[in-house]
Amino acid sequence: MNVLWVFAHPDQGSLSGVLRDEGLAALASAGHRTRVSDLYAMKWKATLDRDDLGDASGDTLSAASRRAYADGTLGADIRAEHDKIDWADAVVLQFPLWWYGMPAILKGWFDRVFVKGYAYGVTDPQRPGRTLRYGQGRLAGKRALVLVTAGSREPALGPRGINGQLDLVLFPLLHGTLWYAGMSVLPPVAVYGADRVGPHEHAAAAALVRRRVAGLDRDAPLPYRTQNGGDYDDDLVLRPELAPGASGLDVHYAGGFTGADE
Amino acid sequence: MNVLWVFAHPDQGSLSGVLRDEGLAALASAGHRTRVSDLYAMKWKATLDRDDLGDASGDTLSAASRRAYADGTLGADIRAEHDKIDWADAVVLQFPLWWYGMPAILKGWFDRVFVKGYAYGVTDPQRPGRTLRYGQGRLAGKRALVLVTAGSREPALGPRGINGQLDLVLFPLLHGTLWYAGMSVLPPVAVYGADRVGPHEHAAAAALVRRRVAGLDRDAPLPYRTQNGGDYDDDLVLRPELAPGASGLDVHYAGGFTGADE
Repeated sequence: MNVLWVFAHPDQGSLSGVLRDEGLAALASAGHRTRVSDLYAMKWKATLDRDDLGDASGDTLSAASRRAYADGTLGADIRAEHDKIDWADAVVLQFPLWWYGMPAILKGWFDRVFVKGYAYGVTDPQRPGRTLRYGQGRLAGKRALVLVTAGSREPALGPRGINGQLDLVLFPLLHGTLWYAGMSVLPPVAVYGADRVGPHEHAAAAALVRRRVAGLDRDAPLPYRTQNGGDYDDDLVLRPELAPGASGLDVHYAGGFTGADE
Repeated sequence: MNVLWVFAHPDQGSLSGVLRDEGLAALASAGHRTRVSDLYAMKWKATLDRDDLGDASGDTLSAASRRAYADGTLGADIRAEHDKIDWADAVVLQFPLWWYGMPAILKGWFDRVFVKGYAYGVTDPQRPGRTLRYGQGRLAGKRALVLVTAGSREPALGPRGINGQLDLVLFPLLHGTLWYAGMSVLPPVAVYGADRVGPHEHAAAAALVRRRVAGLDRDAPLPYRTQNGGDYDDDLVLRPELAPGASGLDVHYAGGFTGADE
């Protein structure tokens, strides 16, 4: 399997850096090929702006991004990431949880790389009026694994923890970005209490990463509902007979996944 | 009232830019004082890195950020934002919803400005073992209003819409960042279908922004539970007698707010 590992921590010597190296070594020893986008080391430009989109100043931003993608005039750094994603069968996204989301440099990887025509706004050639998203699209068939380090202890990111249940806090990334673009999204993996890791927790975290990486090609993805499989009506609202009377982000799991991270 | 308006859209002439100007004019005509952080115009640095934190390379990132804040050695651009926030009674955060979250430039505003000792890791001088967060902290008493433009139509961001209910999709920002830092967070306001706005919708969006800005000093905030008010146990898990048997992000609303955006 070809695996792209996207890494977004400024310190190579951090726990995050050690866990990345553990994961990459485990993948290599299992015979997989790996490539790394180490965003801080690459000095990745975080901010999507008009400079990325060529000369389309009369267009809206999304129209300009579609045109620049179609014309091949996106910046070379963006096109290089497209090549890596196209090469990959699976993508690992590793980051410290900052304010319950991605560091800006990684959010900016999505803002700049997941342009219109590539990761959204993709229509079905057989049915031009229908947009392919949420389980379908240009990136369908690829797998995604999100690996975070969090200062929080595990109960506080659990089902009734004050910080919110991890997979629901990460819903904009797991569902709204990766699944939206068509990828099969594995349950996220978290190392908790990451700023208070002693030798014992360190070894446990490394073992957890090795184990989850070993399942990258076979673990069951999150059971998100597909947009075009019949669960949603024409307004993209969940049909009333499914999870009747319920609301909240977890109605978008078929069968009511409860958010365990392992 | 002193209002800081943080704006994160690259195009001044966009619908977002027009709505910002509507909001600022409405505030001024009601006698409020305003300041603007126009992040693209300021060429705001999005990525938190070691350059921001002075010479504390042996420390973890969070320890280094606490020390740099305490020593006054954070970059001048960060200190200028602290001054604006300290001056403000209310902060408006306006952005286009990109991948169901903030553009990287705004996420990076939080990553770089909300440093340890300023917006988190603040302890109670009377009770040094207790961290002040979720309703308490350095920014308590200030109000926050999030204003987004979204390509999605309203039903798809509603309670059973495929994109997720707006206030829950924004939970990492509304609850995990603004409420975490102590601010009183108003229900978010959204302009839907923002890439297909004709003259009629344009006028309606402007009226909505004027109305919500007029309520900035008096609208009821989201009824998030406080960390230290007795609803959570020592592991920061919601006590079993509250919202018994329930999970999901909306258990963190006292009394079950249902997420209407107006």
